[in-house]
Amino acid sequence: MRNLTMLMDYYELTMANGYYVTGNKDKVAVFDMFYRTNPDGGGFVVSAGLEMLIDYVQGLEFTDDDIEYLRGRNMFDEGFLDYLKNFKFTGTIEAVPEGTIVYPNIPIVTVTAPIIEAQIMETMLLICINFQSLIATKANRIARAAGDAVVMEFGARRAQGPDAAVWGTRACFIGGVNTTATVMADQQFGVTAVGTMAHSWVEFFPSEYEAFKAYAEIYPDNSVLLIDTYDILESGLVNAIKVAHEVLEPMGKRLKGVRIDSGDLAYFSKKIRRTLDAEGLQDCSVVVSNSVDEYLIESLNKQGAKINSYGVGERMITSKSDPVFGGVYKLVAVKDGDTFVPKIKVSENVEKITNPGKKKVYRVYSKKTGYAIADLLTMADEEPDFSDAYSFIDPTKPWKNMKFRNVDAKPLQVTIFKDGELVYEKPTLKEIQDFVKHQLANEVWEEEQRFYNPHIHYLDLSQKLYETKKELLAGVEFVD
Amino acid sequence: MRNLTMLMDYYELTMANGYYVTGNKDKVAVFDMFYRTNPDGGGFVVSAGLEMLIDYVQGLEFTDDDIEYLRGRNMFDEGFLDYLKNFKFTGTIEAVPEGTIVYPNIPIVTVTAPIIEAQIMETMLLICINFQSLIATKANRIARAAGDAVVMEFGARRAQGPDAAVWGTRACFIGGVNTTATVMADQQFGVTAVGTMAHSWVEFFPSEYEAFKAYAEIYPDNSVLLIDTYDILESGLVNAIKVAHEVLEPMGKRLKGVRIDSGDLAYFSKKIRRTLDAEGLQDCSVVVSNSVDEYLIESLNKQGAKINSYGVGERMITSKSDPVFGGVYKLVAVKDGDTFVPKIKVSENVEKITNPGKKKVYRVYSKKTGYAIADLLTMADEEPDFSDAYSFIDPTKPWKNMKFRNVDAKPLQVTIFKDGELVYEKPTLKEIQDFVKHQLANEVWEEEQRFYNPHIHYLDLSQKLYETKKELLAGVEFVD
Repeated sequence: MRNLTMLMDYYELTMANGYYVTGNKDKVAVFDMFYRTNPDGGGFVVSAGLEMLIDYVQGLEFTDDDIEYLRGRNMFDEGFLDYLKNFKFTGTIEAVPEGTIVYPNIPIVTVTAPIIEAQIMETMLLICINFQSLIATKANRIARAAGDAVVMEFGARRAQGPDAAVWGTRACFIGGVNTTATVMADQQFGVTAVGTMAHSWVEFFPSEYEAFKAYAEIYPDNSVLLIDTYDILESGLVNAIKVAHEVLEPMGKRLKGVRIDSGDLAYFSKKIRRTLDAEGLQDCSVVVSNSVDEYLIESLNKQGAKINSYGVGERMITSKSDPVFGGVYKLVAVKDGDTFVPKIKVSENVEKITNPGKKKVYRVYSKKTGYAIADLLTMADEEPDFSDAYSFIDPTKPWKNMKFRNVDAKPLQVTIFKDGELVYEKPTLKEIQDFVKHQLANEVWEEEQRFYNPHIHYLDLSQKLYETKKELLAGVEFVD
Repeated sequence: MRNLTMLMDYYELTMANGYYVTGNKDKVAVFDMFYRTNPDGGGFVVSAGLEMLIDYVQGLEFTDDDIEYLRGRNMFDEGFLDYLKNFKFTGTIEAVPEGTIVYPNIPIVTVTAPIIEAQIMETMLLICINFQSLIATKANRIARAAGDAVVMEFGARRAQGPDAAVWGTRACFIGGVNTTATVMADQQFGVTAVGTMAHSWVEFFPSEYEAFKAYAEIYPDNSVLLIDTYDILESGLVNAIKVAHEVLEPMGKRLKGVRIDSGDLAYFSKKIRRTLDAEGLQDCSVVVSNSVDEYLIESLNKQGAKINSYGVGERMITSKSDPVFGGVYKLVAVKDGDTFVPKIKVSENVEKITNPGKKKVYRVYSKKTGYAIADLLTMADEEPDFSDAYSFIDPTKPWKNMKFRNVDAKPLQVTIFKDGELVYEKPTLKEIQDFVKHQLANEVWEEEQRFYNPHIHYLDLSQKLYETKKELLAGVEFVD
């Protein structure tokens, strides 16, 4: 296991040392990780990244080299450095399971731990959840646009580093992608790796025909031929069909597919489909790549393109149209005796004001349809009763007297670590992908699944939480 | 060292196995890595990523588990799997040193090796160079916009994975950034890590004043106070000044800085500056973060903002405005006996046609000014003589009879690996950063350094290369 303990922001160390020397290190704090805006103007996010976070927490350990490096900075107390030598996470982490459909301002991960421990994991926790949720969400958009067509992840070469390639592929699979080109993601996570040839294979041989023939002879069951090295219609397609008839069919095999990576994908796909069909190759797939994303797929569908399979690269693995997921990690409470004292950050930017306190988040479902009608934030010590009408506050219209009736509600977070021990049984990657599909098919309104102007999922507050927030805001003291 | 051997596209394995079983594995091929478009519409790219590439090549090794995994795919020849067991890179890699200013369509890395070896490293080579060149280039734009102000890298939490955070920081430093928040980048690469406090520190204490006071007492020499947790002017700044006078000055210390992470940076920075100056705190820095990039810095400068130091996060570490660097890796020649036979890829998209052959790239300097006036691509076996007038072809105006006169020229690539051995002495990271600065100050036209509509650097071809390309294009055979 890779030790990523030192992957943190320097201020986490200065603060941790500060809590140590001021005698505060054992004070228990609560941090919420949440985000404020859905990427790409979408209606929701597919949460991901929990598995890497679990690995990280289990591997937390400062080595002697780490301590030596820190000592060399001449800023840290020797007692603190000593404390780090035996550092171990002893707190509790609650989180939504990977693949949960989530919305702005609900806690995705909540850490309740001695403040030094909670503080030291800020950066890595955000790295895990931010990037992977971003990519799972983007991949889900692309998979939904593709409908029944196959989506293959092809982006490793343009990924932002090795981790982005491998863990990004895992996130793509969670979002709904079928297969990948990235071998390491197959080996590590079981996302089936596929691939056939590059332009270099075609160039290497004396002619395109010889390149295709050699390939079909070696891989008669995997013959997807890349037909755009010289000229798609005049050369590539003609040679591919020749190989289908002259090489594969005599062996009792079929040409599996032809792939293009350039040119007008709508025009060529239709032309290729007609030609293949006329040649009796109705079962040969048309595979396209080159700048594919959900918008291009929508446009190709509208133009009646004939595409069986998309290779999707840079626009998915970097979420090119919106490459940053702005998840944050905020202190919301500090334990004093048996009470969690709520804390708030105000900020000049209204949208940066946090929801204070140790909270619980529920998803509220209509009993009639099974669809999720809202999320509800309460204080953690409330026991909301949904069996009868339940009064809540919609913070965008706090003057309205609103009630849930005839609903089911379930807490979204589950316990991952309890007193430092992993108590969560990780689902398989396939189970996570299925969970995403299940929610989108049965629980999430179609109106939230639109790419443009989706319905905004309701986030309601319990009356107690709303009052707590109001009081804290009123209580911010100014010096003059 | 992390073994990233299996981080490749599956087609690299199917092709490698194909070369093996067709008896072609020892044929020597030449691949060029280059890119086609400068990110952000800029005039150049700061190349980076070579160090990670060297680590990768030195660590190339298929483990028994890797071989087992591949055997399980039931597609690969046993002889090929046996060959992989003892796989080692035996070829030659030439590359421009890290920090070299580069332009579209010049070879940044050239691999000359038995085709299986050259093919297997395609994905990782691109991952190394693409991402890090992208980030070094973005960071360089931001550092140039900031001028004499300090630029601190603050982006780890929004980086696309752990590697992106750590290696991305290294690339930022190459581009000209001063310091970072990322501890691991300091520990591994010596990019000085800095940082003070988060909002959580301020929230944790009973009052903002107590939070500031505690911090200043622990770190009297590192007191940059975050003043936007509650209210910048009414609370944060007032408390910071109080701490300067009441806590730091009695210790003979000065308030080092105040930081804001929200609000109108132009307005607040001016207001804060005036207040600090009036309080005798002229030496206290104003530090800002929140959505900073080169465009925001330009705008802040125009508004007369008073900022000493920028914390730059997500927009730099992901190159948010243009997050993909489209470097490619193309077969350009195959060795036959003693000759390198040039190869070309045509494509339906004109800009995807490659420059064929084993080539050399020169940077051509005016003897008078020392500035680089063009790059020149020649065949590798040419010996261009610049001592007299040198005739070349500008491929955008091939009809023009053009000559270089009174120029110096130097080959841009140096040999990194020779027959599998590392022969390159790596410069220090600081030397790489200085190299970038030196080129921009002394060799690269100011007109190429504009953010908008920069001058397009000339890329000229030798007459021999131009003729070779024309012949190959004319010689592409179509089947009907």
